Amino acid sequence: MSDTETLDIGVLGYRFMGKAHANALARLPMFFPDAPNVRRHTLIGRDEDALADAADQFGFEQTATDWETVIDDVDVFYNLGPNHVHAEPSIAALDAGVPVFCEKPLAPTLADAARMRDAAANAEVPAGCAFNYRFVPAIRYAKQLIDAGELGDIHHVRGRYLQDWLVDPEAPWAWRMDNERAGSGALGDLGAHTVDLIRFLVCEHTGEIDRLSGQLQTFVDERPVYGTDGTIKEHRPVTVDDAYTAQIEFENGAVGSLEASRFATGHKNDHTIEIHGSEGSLKFSLERLNELSVLTGTNRGYETVLVTDEDDPYVDAWWPPGHVLGWEHTFVHENYEFLSAVAGGGPFEPSFATAYDVQVVLDAIEQSDSAGEWISLP
Amino acid sequence: MSDTETLDIGVLGYRFMGKAHANALARLPMFFPDAPNVRRHTLIGRDEDALADAADQFGFEQTATDWETVIDDVDVFYNLGPNHVHAEPSIAALDAGVPVFCEKPLAPTLADAARMRDAAANAEVPAGCAFNYRFVPAIRYAKQLIDAGELGDIHHVRGRYLQDWLVDPEAPWAWRMDNERAGSGALGDLGAHTVDLIRFLVCEHTGEIDRLSGQLQTFVDERPVYGTDGTIKEHRPVTVDDAYTAQIEFENGAVGSLEASRFATGHKNDHTIEIHGSEGSLKFSLERLNELSVLTGTNRGYETVLVTDEDDPYVDAWWPPGHVLGWEHTFVHENYEFLSAVAGGGPFEPSFATAYDVQVVLDAIEQSDSAGEWISLP
Amino acid sequence: MSDTETLDIGVLGYRFMGKAHANALARLPMFFPDAPNVRRHTLIGRDEDALADAADQFGFEQTATDWETVIDDVDVFYNLGPNHVHAEPSIAALDAGVPVFCEKPLAPTLADAARMRDAAANAEVPAGCAFNYRFVPAIRYAKQLIDAGELGDIHHVRGRYLQDWLVDPEAPWAWRMDNERAGSGALGDLGAHTVDLIRFLVCEHTGEIDRLSGQLQTFVDERPVYGTDGTIKEHRPVTVDDAYTAQIEFENGAVGSLEASRFATGHKNDHTIEIHGSEGSLKFSLERLNELSVLTGTNRGYETVLVTDEDDPYVDAWWPPGHVLGWEHTFVHENYEFLSAVAGGGPFEPSFATAYDVQVVLDAIEQSDSAGEWISLP
Amino acid sequence: MSDTETLDIGVLGYRFMGKAHANALARLPMFFPDAPNVRRHTLIGRDEDALADAADQFGFEQTATDWETVIDDVDVFYNLGPNHVHAEPSIAALDAGVPVFCEKPLAPTLADAARMRDAAANAEVPAGCAFNYRFVPAIRYAKQLIDAGELGDIHHVRGRYLQDWLVDPEAPWAWRMDNERAGSGALGDLGAHTVDLIRFLVCEHTGEIDRLSGQLQTFVDERPVYGTDGTIKEHRPVTVDDAYTAQIEFENGAVGSLEASRFATGHKNDHTIEIHGSEGSLKFSLERLNELSVLTGTNRGYETVLVTDEDDPYVDAWWPPGHVLGWEHTFVHENYEFLSAVAGGGPFEPSFATAYDVQVVLDAIEQSDSAGEWISLP
Repeated sequence: MSDTETLDIGVLGYRFMGKAHANALARLPMFFPDAPNVRRHTLIGRDEDALADAADQFGFEQTATDWETVIDDVDVFYNLGPNHVHAEPSIAALDAGVPVFCEKPLAPTLADAARMRDAAANAEVPAGCAFNYRFVPAIRYAKQLIDAGELGDIHHVRGRYLQDWLVDPEAPWAWRMDNERAGSGALGDLGAHTVDLIRFLVCEHTGEIDRLSGQLQTFVDERPVYGTDGTIKEHRPVTVDDAYTAQIEFENGAVGSLEASRFATGHKNDHTIEIHGSEGSLKFSLERLNELSVLTGTNRGYETVLVTDEDDPYVDAWWPPGHVLGWEHTFVHENYEFLSAVAGGGPFEPSFATAYDVQVVLDAIEQSDSAGEWISLP
Repeated sequence: MSDTETLDIGVLGYRFMGKAHANALARLPMFFPDAPNVRRHTLIGRDEDALADAADQFGFEQTATDWETVIDDVDVFYNLGPNHVHAEPSIAALDAGVPVFCEKPLAPTLADAARMRDAAANAEVPAGCAFNYRFVPAIRYAKQLIDAGELGDIHHVRGRYLQDWLVDPEAPWAWRMDNERAGSGALGDLGAHTVDLIRFLVCEHTGEIDRLSGQLQTFVDERPVYGTDGTIKEHRPVTVDDAYTAQIEFENGAVGSLEASRFATGHKNDHTIEIHGSEGSLKFSLERLNELSVLTGTNRGYETVLVTDEDDPYVDAWWPPGHVLGWEHTFVHENYEFLSAVAGGGPFEPSFATAYDVQVVLDAIEQSDSAGEWISLP
Repeated sequence: MSDTETLDIGVLGYRFMGKAHANALARLPMFFPDAPNVRRHTLIGRDEDALADAADQFGFEQTATDWETVIDDVDVFYNLGPNHVHAEPSIAALDAGVPVFCEKPLAPTLADAARMRDAAANAEVPAGCAFNYRFVPAIRYAKQLIDAGELGDIHHVRGRYLQDWLVDPEAPWAWRMDNERAGSGALGDLGAHTVDLIRFLVCEHTGEIDRLSGQLQTFVDERPVYGTDGTIKEHRPVTVDDAYTAQIEFENGAVGSLEASRFATGHKNDHTIEIHGSEGSLKFSLERLNELSVLTGTNRGYETVLVTDEDDPYVDAWWPPGHVLGWEHTFVHENYEFLSAVAGGGPFEPSFATAYDVQVVLDAIEQSDSAGEWISLP
Repeated sequence: MSDTETLDIGVLGYRFMGKAHANALARLPMFFPDAPNVRRHTLIGRDEDALADAADQFGFEQTATDWETVIDDVDVFYNLGPNHVHAEPSIAALDAGVPVFCEKPLAPTLADAARMRDAAANAEVPAGCAFNYRFVPAIRYAKQLIDAGELGDIHHVRGRYLQDWLVDPEAPWAWRMDNERAGSGALGDLGAHTVDLIRFLVCEHTGEIDRLSGQLQTFVDERPVYGTDGTIKEHRPVTVDDAYTAQIEFENGAVGSLEASRFATGHKNDHTIEIHGSEGSLKFSLERLNELSVLTGTNRGYETVLVTDEDDPYVDAWWPPGHVLGWEHTFVHENYEFLSAVAGGGPFEPSFATAYDVQVVLDAIEQSDSAGEWISLP
């Protein structure tokens, strides 16, 4: 570590996720004063001009185009690049003893994910996967309720992640539509969140997902690439799913339905989780992330709970009751937890091992779709 | 016909559905004055005392314990008995040239449903299946929107029917939990509604359901039979599903998720339909059946439309805008349509042929569950 | 009484309210078998052709154009005419010992209302005012909660009744816009419901409304009268309010805000009540009349309670949980209660005395508006 | 200005508002790169230890206990202290040519507010009042709709701000309950926001608030002061309102109802605005601040619009559609606008003059409450 008090962070990726994590790092001191001190040390990317602008805006001290050199210089490595560059840099960093925080899904293929999991298992530093929705206060509160037995035995789980940014067939091609780079489409990008969240919430009680049936669908097979003048230069094939559904069964017999789409007209970032147990039920929607709908005890209907009280998870760090948080706060919370684990030497969840387990489910969904039959998970 | 102006109705079944249809018949003259005149002629059942009470309360002129004799005396036969008595009386009535209105699902087995469909095909009178949710004004309005192209090409369909009356393992055994009598559980009782409604709404545009994967689950394997003193006399096996899920794919590539449960704690009669097309989306919930959530045209979000305007389907028969209708009104509407078809000699939908098609889907869900693989529909 | 078992009902008024009550009378035997038997005896109106049609549709045995003669022939008199014909026939009936059920508001003026109250006080038969919203199951349930102390001490009350049928300045003139006939506009037509409902719910706990400030507003001063050919024949002045607001204070210091409008674009029949007490809160909306939003005990947020369980008020007469009721059911319930009081000789609430108290509040709102100052109620 | 590129900010107040503004200042560079550079220069307060801790956490370079000396050292003065210290420091700063950003309400008395307005009028630098809710994207979007005529002529306005932190009579006394220091209670603290927001949204179309009736209520007259050991040391009188209501009328005849309370059980920070015009309506709730309910054009019902699209106000600075913002973002937006005005020499709204106009309304509500009659505004 470059000095005993401050963690130098190297970050690969400077677009959407780069901004989200840079913001989180910048906000820690004011809201989580017991978080480790961090320095936004090096921002890594390929396009030097764009990178320099981003580093300036995001408060990084320097930039680099070669991640390999950076690993030696930093205390922590954040891998926020496209899915196909998750494996090599992350493994290299872990092999060098540098803690890694990697965006989700862990990797485009199960094989890559396995290599990452193994590298993490051999390292003595935390390797975390940035499933940020675990860090929504309402989700943490939901887990508290479930763990306290307020829902009784879990019978039903439902997870759905709806977006609509591809419903227009003329929407431009992007790397997220390419199987080589993204691994999958809605399944990996959105479904990974759902699978992680559901496993986080219920698997201690239901056991693991035991078997599943998967369905992938691509509604538009190719998409235009636009030139800088706005004209279509070419069409490239869409080699990932636009949408998926899954039926799942847990070890205890609970059943579930999963779904995601980029064709759900009118839905921008609508991630919903619903759970029914023998004693209660709950519902969560990401577009109203400060709320949890809860039915427990003698309730006749769902309570719309605004999860912004002082004793709600993470809330005392922020504002008084009713002063709602936003999507970005989830990144502050996960960075706080991850960096605290790095500094304190403790474990961090979701780890690479946990993220690998998510990948097993995603892979089984693809397998099942190909085979047209249910798949039992290992 | 017993006289030229009034239709004599014979009704088999005097419990929940008997009451719902008797009420509908009673209300027609005041609200649908152009409906045929009807006489509540004979109420048919087995328990003579209970039957007499019901006939008195429901306004029937007489009772009978033998449906065979009644068929000759009435102009229309309503079969509202348990699923396992749908086939014989309905077929006999149709063979005798008597129009039949039968509760859903059409039959406990596909074979029985096929026989009923064939009898209807050979008869020259209407044979209708009472899928009453087609007659919710908001559902009719939804169909108008879809047929007018307001949603564009359909990509996603979701149907879910949630109840919770069996979540208590001590809830008593009933005929609905017996495979012989009910055919199936949540699948036939609730899923039949969902399949019919979805087919009604979208299949003209998506084509038929092409293939599907089904999953059935029974959470509680046996249930108590209580004596009149409230003690448990015996336990009987539950031989039907408590819940089902299905993944479906339509001919045009649209995908869907279906689900029903009797274990969804806190949900009493929560039938929801959601559809996403290339140009719009809609959502419906039976517990708020006067409303339709609609996103079309330049809408950015869903409109919560109160479907109670004068020009909304069936509404001009009732009350001014904003004076909401209830669940029972769907029965008035379907009885109006069915009896008008009987009197006018026209077709009625949903017919036995249509209800058979629903049964094909339900049967395929069961087959798929057994086989653990996707089933292609004929 | 014409015979010992059946009450002959004479009904003045055959339009909207005539239909609503005729329907209620017709439905009693099937759903409230312990209700008195009734005969729809005579329907009273002025336009003989329209009246004959209505009598036929609503199931009345005969018609009359002169209410005075009818009073002697019937056991119960329903006064469902425009507000300005509430007083004379109701008083005459009561003076003749005939029970009266009168639509709301009790009268166009406080003086008329006082005469009606006095007539009722001198009669030995029930005189009821048809504030039907007291008979919504969710409202009854709300009252149970309040009376059980679940809300603690009441601090805030809010009542709002929004419609939009007059927002178009070209909407036709009608008797409801004429001060002579209607007494007031939104205030009497809508506000009467709100005042009655709030008094019903809280006044046992808060004491009476002690003082208030009223505001009336007329947005469009005159409206067209259209000929049968659709052309405008003349314009008539609007001499009533299009909207009102009120601030109220109860004897215990609780405060309230009331409001109604016929200019609330997009709202069809949106009557909402909100109450906050020291221990809980509740919200009700007529457009979702099967629901009550409740916050009590350890609740953190409002529960959306579907008030359709068997033990909810009036619900056991109808359908299983989750099978929702509509607006018209409130009329069945109030007719059941009123006619039971008539047959049983018991009291009925809301009585003319209670309806007079409502009128006192409405009158004070008008006085306050004229005076531009707070008015203390007697 | 201390250097040509960076604005040195002096901030009086280091509690809730101090944190909210410090956070906003810290976030500007990453999200609003065209904002002026700022230095968190001096944090001003009385308790030196607490102040030092806050300065450290909030990133201020130094602290001071005497605001007078700071004014000379900074480029901008933020007055975030209790209401009774708004006037003197703000006036002194303005007299010294230092721009002032002052928390709301402008002052505890109208006289103080007038002095502040006059000082601002004589200064050649911006004097802004921090009514942050003007800077919610959904509110800006609402204003765009209103200004574009999408709602037509405004008839109704409703504003309500509900909290519940005082409903417990044992809740501790605080300066906000003292008339000398706070000026008023719910009225100034919450009602000021409502009055500003409503004036911002509609007054260009309705004209000013012309006359009003006000009502103030204090439910609990004295409250305990607790010692550090948790025991009650004394009781102090509550000399402000716990709740207020107002009826208002605009110059064009539109009417409105205003209300706020600290006794609305279950409501944490529930600020709602509702507006009905001849062509449309809208609804906003602060607890769901990413949403605006909109009814315009051919809409039949309200659209629930998630105001997070790229072209929504301020949103392009943040995250992709559907990635919701929180309460604190309003402070970033208002600081961006205020500091841009300071740097660019332009005007800022809401100015002290505007905030004075709000105070006139608040003062009239108090006058009306005392007089028991309507008050016409100047």
